[in-house]
Amino acid sequence: MAQKLWEKSVQVDHDVERFTVGRDREMDLYLAPYDILGSLAHINMLQSIGLLTADELEKLTAELRQIYHETQAGTFTIEEGVEDVHSQVELLLTRRLGDMGKKIHSGRSRNDQVLVDLKLFTRARLHRLVEGVEHLFTTLIDQSERYKTVLMPGYTHLQVAMPSSFGLWFAAYAESLVDDLIVMQAAYRVCNRNPLGSAAGYGSSFPLDRTRTTDLLGFESMDYNVVYAQMGRGKTERLVASAIASVAATLAKLAFDACLYNSQNFGFIKLPDAFTTGSSIMPHKKNPDVFELTRAKCNKLQALPYQITLIANNLPSGYFRDLQIIKELFLPAFDELEECLHMVDLMMAQIEVNTHIIDDPRYNYMFSVEEVNRRVQAGVPFRDAYKQVGLEIEAGQFTPDKHIAHTHEGSIGNLCNDRITALMQQTVASFDFDRAQRAEARLLGLQND
Amino acid sequence: MAQKLWEKSVQVDHDVERFTVGRDREMDLYLAPYDILGSLAHINMLQSIGLLTADELEKLTAELRQIYHETQAGTFTIEEGVEDVHSQVELLLTRRLGDMGKKIHSGRSRNDQVLVDLKLFTRARLHRLVEGVEHLFTTLIDQSERYKTVLMPGYTHLQVAMPSSFGLWFAAYAESLVDDLIVMQAAYRVCNRNPLGSAAGYGSSFPLDRTRTTDLLGFESMDYNVVYAQMGRGKTERLVASAIASVAATLAKLAFDACLYNSQNFGFIKLPDAFTTGSSIMPHKKNPDVFELTRAKCNKLQALPYQITLIANNLPSGYFRDLQIIKELFLPAFDELEECLHMVDLMMAQIEVNTHIIDDPRYNYMFSVEEVNRRVQAGVPFRDAYKQVGLEIEAGQFTPDKHIAHTHEGSIGNLCNDRITALMQQTVASFDFDRAQRAEARLLGLQND
Amino acid sequence: MAQKLWEKSVQVDHDVERFTVGRDREMDLYLAPYDILGSLAHINMLQSIGLLTADELEKLTAELRQIYHETQAGTFTIEEGVEDVHSQVELLLTRRLGDMGKKIHSGRSRNDQVLVDLKLFTRARLHRLVEGVEHLFTTLIDQSERYKTVLMPGYTHLQVAMPSSFGLWFAAYAESLVDDLIVMQAAYRVCNRNPLGSAAGYGSSFPLDRTRTTDLLGFESMDYNVVYAQMGRGKTERLVASAIASVAATLAKLAFDACLYNSQNFGFIKLPDAFTTGSSIMPHKKNPDVFELTRAKCNKLQALPYQITLIANNLPSGYFRDLQIIKELFLPAFDELEECLHMVDLMMAQIEVNTHIIDDPRYNYMFSVEEVNRRVQAGVPFRDAYKQVGLEIEAGQFTPDKHIAHTHEGSIGNLCNDRITALMQQTVASFDFDRAQRAEARLLGLQND
Amino acid sequence: MAQKLWEKSVQVDHDVERFTVGRDREMDLYLAPYDILGSLAHINMLQSIGLLTADELEKLTAELRQIYHETQAGTFTIEEGVEDVHSQVELLLTRRLGDMGKKIHSGRSRNDQVLVDLKLFTRARLHRLVEGVEHLFTTLIDQSERYKTVLMPGYTHLQVAMPSSFGLWFAAYAESLVDDLIVMQAAYRVCNRNPLGSAAGYGSSFPLDRTRTTDLLGFESMDYNVVYAQMGRGKTERLVASAIASVAATLAKLAFDACLYNSQNFGFIKLPDAFTTGSSIMPHKKNPDVFELTRAKCNKLQALPYQITLIANNLPSGYFRDLQIIKELFLPAFDELEECLHMVDLMMAQIEVNTHIIDDPRYNYMFSVEEVNRRVQAGVPFRDAYKQVGLEIEAGQFTPDKHIAHTHEGSIGNLCNDRITALMQQTVASFDFDRAQRAEARLLGLQND
Repeated sequence: MAQKLWEKSVQVDHDVERFTVGRDREMDLYLAPYDILGSLAHINMLQSIGLLTADELEKLTAELRQIYHETQAGTFTIEEGVEDVHSQVELLLTRRLGDMGKKIHSGRSRNDQVLVDLKLFTRARLHRLVEGVEHLFTTLIDQSERYKTVLMPGYTHLQVAMPSSFGLWFAAYAESLVDDLIVMQAAYRVCNRNPLGSAAGYGSSFPLDRTRTTDLLGFESMDYNVVYAQMGRGKTERLVASAIASVAATLAKLAFDACLYNSQNFGFIKLPDAFTTGSSIMPHKKNPDVFELTRAKCNKLQALPYQITLIANNLPSGYFRDLQIIKELFLPAFDELEECLHMVDLMMAQIEVNTHIIDDPRYNYMFSVEEVNRRVQAGVPFRDAYKQVGLEIEAGQFTPDKHIAHTHEGSIGNLCNDRITALMQQTVASFDFDRAQRAEARLLGLQND
Repeated sequence: MAQKLWEKSVQVDHDVERFTVGRDREMDLYLAPYDILGSLAHINMLQSIGLLTADELEKLTAELRQIYHETQAGTFTIEEGVEDVHSQVELLLTRRLGDMGKKIHSGRSRNDQVLVDLKLFTRARLHRLVEGVEHLFTTLIDQSERYKTVLMPGYTHLQVAMPSSFGLWFAAYAESLVDDLIVMQAAYRVCNRNPLGSAAGYGSSFPLDRTRTTDLLGFESMDYNVVYAQMGRGKTERLVASAIASVAATLAKLAFDACLYNSQNFGFIKLPDAFTTGSSIMPHKKNPDVFELTRAKCNKLQALPYQITLIANNLPSGYFRDLQIIKELFLPAFDELEECLHMVDLMMAQIEVNTHIIDDPRYNYMFSVEEVNRRVQAGVPFRDAYKQVGLEIEAGQFTPDKHIAHTHEGSIGNLCNDRITALMQQTVASFDFDRAQRAEARLLGLQND
Repeated sequence: MAQKLWEKSVQVDHDVERFTVGRDREMDLYLAPYDILGSLAHINMLQSIGLLTADELEKLTAELRQIYHETQAGTFTIEEGVEDVHSQVELLLTRRLGDMGKKIHSGRSRNDQVLVDLKLFTRARLHRLVEGVEHLFTTLIDQSERYKTVLMPGYTHLQVAMPSSFGLWFAAYAESLVDDLIVMQAAYRVCNRNPLGSAAGYGSSFPLDRTRTTDLLGFESMDYNVVYAQMGRGKTERLVASAIASVAATLAKLAFDACLYNSQNFGFIKLPDAFTTGSSIMPHKKNPDVFELTRAKCNKLQALPYQITLIANNLPSGYFRDLQIIKELFLPAFDELEECLHMVDLMMAQIEVNTHIIDDPRYNYMFSVEEVNRRVQAGVPFRDAYKQVGLEIEAGQFTPDKHIAHTHEGSIGNLCNDRITALMQQTVASFDFDRAQRAEARLLGLQND
Repeated sequence: MAQKLWEKSVQVDHDVERFTVGRDREMDLYLAPYDILGSLAHINMLQSIGLLTADELEKLTAELRQIYHETQAGTFTIEEGVEDVHSQVELLLTRRLGDMGKKIHSGRSRNDQVLVDLKLFTRARLHRLVEGVEHLFTTLIDQSERYKTVLMPGYTHLQVAMPSSFGLWFAAYAESLVDDLIVMQAAYRVCNRNPLGSAAGYGSSFPLDRTRTTDLLGFESMDYNVVYAQMGRGKTERLVASAIASVAATLAKLAFDACLYNSQNFGFIKLPDAFTTGSSIMPHKKNPDVFELTRAKCNKLQALPYQITLIANNLPSGYFRDLQIIKELFLPAFDELEECLHMVDLMMAQIEVNTHIIDDPRYNYMFSVEEVNRRVQAGVPFRDAYKQVGLEIEAGQFTPDKHIAHTHEGSIGNLCNDRITALMQQTVASFDFDRAQRAEARLLGLQND
């Protein structure tokens, strides 16, 4: 089989083959379109430095674009006996163009080829994740605005403490997503660097023009040092995984609140039927399965950076096959988070809130601090006001005034959702996804510049 | 004891006291100066909304600045029986100013007070860390330039693979630090938001001016939503801890390389004597204890985000006392990473490299790929060139040409250290530490605006 | 669809279905035979307390045994639209026996049914793992005996320190496996308890005879308290995962040593060709891919307890759907560790060692401690002997005597492999796998009692 | 300074000293008494093989016992400038006995000395932990018996599901502790092996009698293979930490339940005042600070095995200084868990339960399954009974019969606390702590044999 340069005379045992290939062919399907984008840029550069003729470039470009479309149409597969996506693409090219097909590997090694595939894949999937996060953000802000006058108890230590509102509750998670995207943008920047040209981690004696491939692929800059470019494998995945984990943490916390508030002991929210399971003899039982699964999946995602760390840690510099296993953990994580975002978005859009929570007298005492503050603003020293109210409560003479007039920034009466939304918009804009998209469209011949 | 508002008639058992206070008084010493900065901004704002008189503001400001200087002089302590820094500061103020001292708590709760303390502390310590990282960066770039012509083997799979150089090796870790700072800058931005005014996590009925405290404390913006401001506790620490862990991962990897290259089986580097231990009867034994301890400490730091996650995870929204324990883990981490940065910096500045490594014939074959490429550039098709060199090696006729002429960006002959340095400078500039420093100086009366 | 008791009139959205079923049908194939074993015991007990007739028991038993054989033959599948293994088994029974098929659920809930499935599955797979560990143990002891006279350097701090031997090296990992099995036996005991009868975690008003199902299934005892039985979900998996992680840690460490010793800078071992990859132009390059992948897979397995902890932690008592996600992580881990054990076993059996390592003069100084000890045994005070040898080395007059005569227990000359083997045999015997196997055979009608 | 054998002519920089010593002197105070026990056994053995005279043995034994008593009296300290406990003990001996004091190191290295210290320390502290666990177990069983007739709702998905009881709830955690101790006993067995005689990890040319020290120290057996003895460092800590984490997980879960049930939205329990904080104006607010801190500390402890893994993982065999850092994490963990056990024990003994929970009509539907089962036992097919009850509920005609008659093993009416207690007793007995205690007493001259 031409695909395996390292194959020696000895017969490679079938078990070893199965063990070493592992789930690589499945994983490489995630990478296929990005592998082709990387090759399109690489051959363009090879022609610019005289390692391909203009005619070769044209033919190879056309075929690669064709294979790219096959990946999009779902007809691209990695054939039995072909070990990875790089080999499959070469196989298709040589079938169609003969030996010319092999030239796409000049000045590259598998190491920088998979590095660039991972970067391009991650960049594209982060783009989709950001869109998903932004969509959920909008849903949450919309719900915050819709329910901004509905009060609920605010807890400290899970003890009823102070008045809160659904306006605050929904928008708190929206603002949490802004910070998650700030972290994700940093991971995106680390990812948005070109490793191509680092070869096996020590560069090449070919006069590669790495600035050219950087521009062609729309990267913000390159991983300059070739040893560092290789060192970025595992590290980039870990940083991106931490950003994924941060969004997941926000979703898991929201899911925890929702499961709690859905308990008969709270009764704050009503989940849409499609998202719960129940029992016909326990009609009030609405099991929040979808939120529970979201919580569990997001908690699993929070372990991802640690898995990657355990695999990549305490290895000296230079490539090791260990890094292959990270792909199995990292690549599917994007699907998992997307799915959770989608579910939470659907649920949060349809959730109904109990508008009569604070009629329940068990929440009366949470208005006591309000009363103290009212007296303080009327001139009573704090500790005196505090004492007065305490004594009234002790004597059973406390009647809560449930009218809340909080006015400062970010409070019940002044949610600042517009300012939180502005922060989100700035953050999303800072990713500059357009640059990447334009570059990829050009490489695919889909856009003139 | 006036310090404990929650103290009820019942006698609090001594064991419980010890358990609940825990290491809090020790930890709060880290926070003391930042607690005072927060109070200085808070009282300024209180006066602006009419809750303090100009005279009260002046007196309280003067005393708080005095206490601040005591924290800097090392004379500030938390007295026996005082449970935390907030109580200690209030105690000092009331001793000196009477009941007026208690007014610094109007419109605040302990919750937003400790939130702002943690943010200000973290902001300041991130500043110091960034300086430490930048210093090490410069050392590494200097060494890269000094040794840029010294070749060493490049490994893949820990097998001798390709020529590399000390120019590449030192600068690879420098470039790694750039990416670590990009992640740290995101954590800094999340941290650089004002939570003050969120009170116990549900805001206040006082007409607080949170924009004013945001400006006074030099924050980039505020945590708007008060529920989110509280939710940021644990989350901010986790994000900052991930950034700390990323620097730690770079140091640990560098330490691993150094320990390996220091082995007699490699002999690539010579560590300064002050950083090794040895044995008079095994004169060649130079145990790299300092690098080993650095590696271990940095690996410990890499567990920090996980510890925080385990504590904060699966808690519903709202304050819990659990968060106190995060302080014990989080606050000392800055000292630990600083210490490691300092040690690595000292060692990397003094390390000596073996300039004759590649004279050892065991590294001859790593020049075979170079030879293949040379022939390809001279017009031989890749697979033919590859076959020729393979046959020469098999026949024992391969003589390596150890002259390396890599020219592309980031390669042995073209390290691009200037461009990596430019990236570092931009990254450090993006923190905008000046804004925070100027604001703090104004609050302390150290600078006119 | 009759299989979903909780299905209400509302149309369950397709996305939700896909999200909630997730990988459950795939996972449940692991559990199918164990689900049937659990049902066989359960119906036997139901008949004993009068909830099934003898005739019903006989018919149901025959059909369940038939379905069991289908799971062994690979013909059992979970049909499209059937949500889990419990529903599929019921479906098959009702197709064949009508409504009688539904009776297997009397006095049970899905909760204790999946609990017992997991316990039986884990028990069986731990048995297979122990066999795999024992096989590798034997291979390691055999190699230790074969190479017991071959010396190698012993390192501290990766510095050449003292003479060691391949006899020690191989057997060290064998002894490590003994301790791993001690931990695994504890996990096995926790697992080997009957949760059946705990229903949804709060028991049942049926007069179940849990002692009977405990005996029938060959459990050592039962999880008595029904609330604890449910609480064991997640916990059992975590404890077993820790035991799996411990074996994985031993394999990963062995793999790390092997990758290091395989480097040209050590040259201590020669890996069989079938387990390495290489390059025809770098003939000495033998990439230890299989060991690297083993290391990475085993490091991934070491993260498993933390993943489970993150999912199960900070949940109050009682069932949550979150626990379903643990199955996806836990069930495949047995295959992964088995595969690694198999690979390491094959490699360690075929590994060749370099019998001339210590001829290399770079290892001379490691004999200096031996020389000091020789003098001490001849009566020279330790510090004097130490000084003498140190001076000889300094003067270049030290000639190592490479004859090693260590005699104490566990040393080069007295490996105690027989005693380590005895420990292993006792440990394996303590699992008492026979009891479980006999019980299962009886339930399947494969053995008379 | 005589204490540092490795000290060379070069001046060791003060910063390096501080960095390398780190918290070692503080940590070594934990180990001091165990270091002395190890030395007592070692010198006894040295005399038996002729390396000490009877007179030397007698004098050294007397002084070591004296120093031991100083460690117990709290007067033993590690002096400024002395780097560790081994050096301090030697210093004291040489001050009192001259050069004879140095002989305690013959045939040992610091490596096996600290190994045996850690094993003895851990063995003793596991003993104390087991006592703490057993005490809490008894408290929980007592409370289970006291409140066995008090019903509470049982939840699934945090939805009211089925009747449960405080009898079940308390005892569930008791039974959980039994399984935790089974795991701990395995860790104890791994720990209860003698590493002494492994020297620096490669044994010694002295004719050491390791069987003798094994017996003298009361170890169950020895770590035979000397390379494995060294490899046990880090591994033993990890296994013990996993056992600690398991107890911690049980306590954290109990604390979570308690915090939830203490919420006004549940109102199931009343925590003793000494263990809560509150507010005089929110009289119903009883913040469960002690349980929250317990939960957080126990969650922190659950991260311990991961920290150890990160430090020890991917290191080749042989000693590394990295292992020193594990001490800082591992040794204090025993205090932390003990403290949590103590607090939980105190609280659980004093907790009061609400005996009228199920009078609240919101819990009525949880009796519906009971009603279905009643009808099934009366002969109605399950699905018919289920339908009947469902229709009655729908029609508002369902009146719950709150009499619960569960009789099977482990159910509300048949808790099997005696059998759980018997399991606990067997488990505790299996540790065989007596053997260790008797041996230590003999070494200290406190017991005749």
